[in-house]
Amino acid sequence: MSPVSRKQPPTRRSAPVPDTARRSERSRRAIYAAALSLVAEVGYPRTTVEGIAARAGVGKQTIYRWWSSKAEVLLEAFLDLGEQAAEEAGERPFVFPDTGDLAADLRFVLRATVDELLDPRFEPPARALAAEGVVNERLGRTFVAKLLEPQLQLYVARLRAARETGDVRADLDPRIALELFVAPLAQRWLQRTGPLSHDYADTLVDYALYGLVPR
Amino acid sequence: MSPVSRKQPPTRRSAPVPDTARRSERSRRAIYAAALSLVAEVGYPRTTVEGIAARAGVGKQTIYRWWSSKAEVLLEAFLDLGEQAAEEAGERPFVFPDTGDLAADLRFVLRATVDELLDPRFEPPARALAAEGVVNERLGRTFVAKLLEPQLQLYVARLRAARETGDVRADLDPRIALELFVAPLAQRWLQRTGPLSHDYADTLVDYALYGLVPR
Repeated sequence: MSPVSRKQPPTRRSAPVPDTARRSERSRRAIYAAALSLVAEVGYPRTTVEGIAARAGVGKQTIYRWWSSKAEVLLEAFLDLGEQAAEEAGERPFVFPDTGDLAADLRFVLRATVDELLDPRFEPPARALAAEGVVNERLGRTFVAKLLEPQLQLYVARLRAARETGDVRADLDPRIALELFVAPLAQRWLQRTGPLSHDYADTLVDYALYGLVPR
Repeated sequence: MSPVSRKQPPTRRSAPVPDTARRSERSRRAIYAAALSLVAEVGYPRTTVEGIAARAGVGKQTIYRWWSSKAEVLLEAFLDLGEQAAEEAGERPFVFPDTGDLAADLRFVLRATVDELLDPRFEPPARALAAEGVVNERLGRTFVAKLLEPQLQLYVARLRAARETGDVRADLDPRIALELFVAPLAQRWLQRTGPLSHDYADTLVDYALYGLVPR
């Protein structure tokens, strides 16, 4: 749901690697791609480990050797997708910036989140999983705990630092405060209640930091 | 998604009514109940007009006489659900309060929205439709346009009035500003990212109106 999914270290890419490792790596990538495209096409309930294996051109046993369920495959495929996007963009594994200018740091992260939400590789599988998470409580909670909440905790850390420096109210609850930035983007994306843009992201930062009441 | 769905006037309930009208009214209620329970149980894609008719104990033709699709039946069933809840609570058809105290008015509406989101009659069918709307763009846009956006426009009107009285910034865009209140509730409900409570609603009003930066 945001550039923060780029936090996984790309450990598996260090060269040189023996042939079997290279073959494994190729299978792993094929499985991720198959899982993401399949869930986007047929939805989560009709995606199966068998279907992923068939599309990836591997045996079912290859998948079960590394993962215990389709939910796990998809979770790692998403983490990998964020990682790849970051590499292509030439970015370091994601760290929430702290330049000392809270407004600028928030604008930077929210703009990057807008770009990721609009990325055509990301959107269809992410929608399929988000939709399933709305009605499938177990899956929804797993994905929130493993994908979304770690990203939100980076906002918590940045807002906590801002509380130390007096840039936000001393009594602020960072876990609630971050929702003023993140939730409007999520709702526009999930429910299509309005367009996503950098201008919109900047406006959210302005309204949330300085308030709707005149200063 | 909020008490604002209570805005439909209960015109069909004026007595006295002839027998045929009473029979029609009974069928209509049975159809709404069947549609809401069915979508909650099997999801939107597997809900059919035939299934609704069978559960309601009416012929398929009875449904097609009044509605052209299952989406339409569900839309009206939802509007009716809000109306009924309001009647039971002894409330007038919903109007966004304007007591002159913007913070109090917002707290009132957001607390009522929390109560509605937690209402066990409302939650399962609303989740089934929200999930479908995430991946089914046409349905999602229809429900947002007919159910959600009319409610959001009441926030727009209240914030516009507040702009006139100088209670919010003169340059405020009310359609964006309202999202600071509404979207966090929607995300906690849709993605289960945290509990919903009156205290939480009050905190959102406080943070959004006065800002995260110290005054």
